[in-house]
Amino acid sequence: MPVPADGPPRSGLFVAFEGGEGAGKSTQVRLLQEWLAAEGHAARATLEPGGTPVGAAVRAIVLDRAHTGLASRAEALLYAADRAQHAHAVLRPALAAGEVVITDRYIDSSLAYQGAGRTIPLDDVATISGWATEGLRPHLTVLLDVPPETGLARARGRAEADRLESESLEFHQRVRATFRTLAGTDPGRYLVLDATRPVDELAAAVRARVGPLLPVRS
Amino acid sequence: MPVPADGPPRSGLFVAFEGGEGAGKSTQVRLLQEWLAAEGHAARATLEPGGTPVGAAVRAIVLDRAHTGLASRAEALLYAADRAQHAHAVLRPALAAGEVVITDRYIDSSLAYQGAGRTIPLDDVATISGWATEGLRPHLTVLLDVPPETGLARARGRAEADRLESESLEFHQRVRATFRTLAGTDPGRYLVLDATRPVDELAAAVRARVGPLLPVRS
Repeated sequence: MPVPADGPPRSGLFVAFEGGEGAGKSTQVRLLQEWLAAEGHAARATLEPGGTPVGAAVRAIVLDRAHTGLASRAEALLYAADRAQHAHAVLRPALAAGEVVITDRYIDSSLAYQGAGRTIPLDDVATISGWATEGLRPHLTVLLDVPPETGLARARGRAEADRLESESLEFHQRVRATFRTLAGTDPGRYLVLDATRPVDELAAAVRARVGPLLPVRS
Repeated sequence: MPVPADGPPRSGLFVAFEGGEGAGKSTQVRLLQEWLAAEGHAARATLEPGGTPVGAAVRAIVLDRAHTGLASRAEALLYAADRAQHAHAVLRPALAAGEVVITDRYIDSSLAYQGAGRTIPLDDVATISGWATEGLRPHLTVLLDVPPETGLARARGRAEADRLESESLEFHQRVRATFRTLAGTDPGRYLVLDATRPVDELAAAVRARVGPLLPVRS
């Protein structure tokens, strides 16, 4: 099952935020989108799982604590289905229109959670995600790196723990290690930030990295 | 992504029913299960999509007419997720316990509907289904072969057409052709029946083929 290696799209700008629970991804996605809009760019914030109506239904399945018997391969395929729909219905059309698209989680989250966290070979997860997206990759991935102890305490402070958050600390440590390893393999396409730093400092660091990548405004 | 070729399980008996809309699969599954039970066999009837709680949620997504914008790859991955959960939670445990398991649809349905009916390479669909099930294959597949005109008229008589049933006649003709081609590639593992024949005749033909395959009762 060959995966097309077409990489980042030629139009628009595709930025992914990755990191563990409570890393502050949704806050940084919002701040970046607001800044871009204020600067006059067409900028869209989206997320996985759940960035489409189909994806929202899939998200409800995978995060439902009632589904504790969810098989690892079923879980991986559900995330891939969400991603396929997201790439088809949201990411590619927006990028083709020249927009800046910012997603809260993308392929690295599957690699970290399903691959390292569970018992599925990383290569299989990568192959399935590549097939699902027809090879669509971000121009830049921002990894908000946070120790699980810190992130989980933040996440638990805001809502009842969902199924993933209720996994063991060791699970989240493996997830974090995988995120960092992925960033290390392709430093030119990653920005790794210490997510325990103040929100404003992090937002400034993101802006500094994204600014030079922005499409020329017409 | 290598697919294990472990084939049919060594314990129990795994029978799949395949065919287009209105072919009479659910009726024949029920009749076979009732006969087996009357003969003293532990026999379980199940189905795809929707043979597990997770699968029922997936089934609701793929059959919802509101999701007409469902991407082909997302659809294929959703069916594969349903199948992964089904194999993990229902098929393998029942077969390991020595039961006869009869499923209404399995991998061939994905090959016929997603592969031939849509725009996805058959090999990709086969690879994903093989990965989802870790190579679990039926001992016998019964193809209830019916012209789409006949099957669709039957299916439409019983309920509002769902998303798949509302596809074009040409789509269903391609689906039928793929089912027949699959059966032709491995005749020893298929029983192909003309599903326009009377229900009782069909049930007798199924019993005649299944009987010699049954596990010895303890």
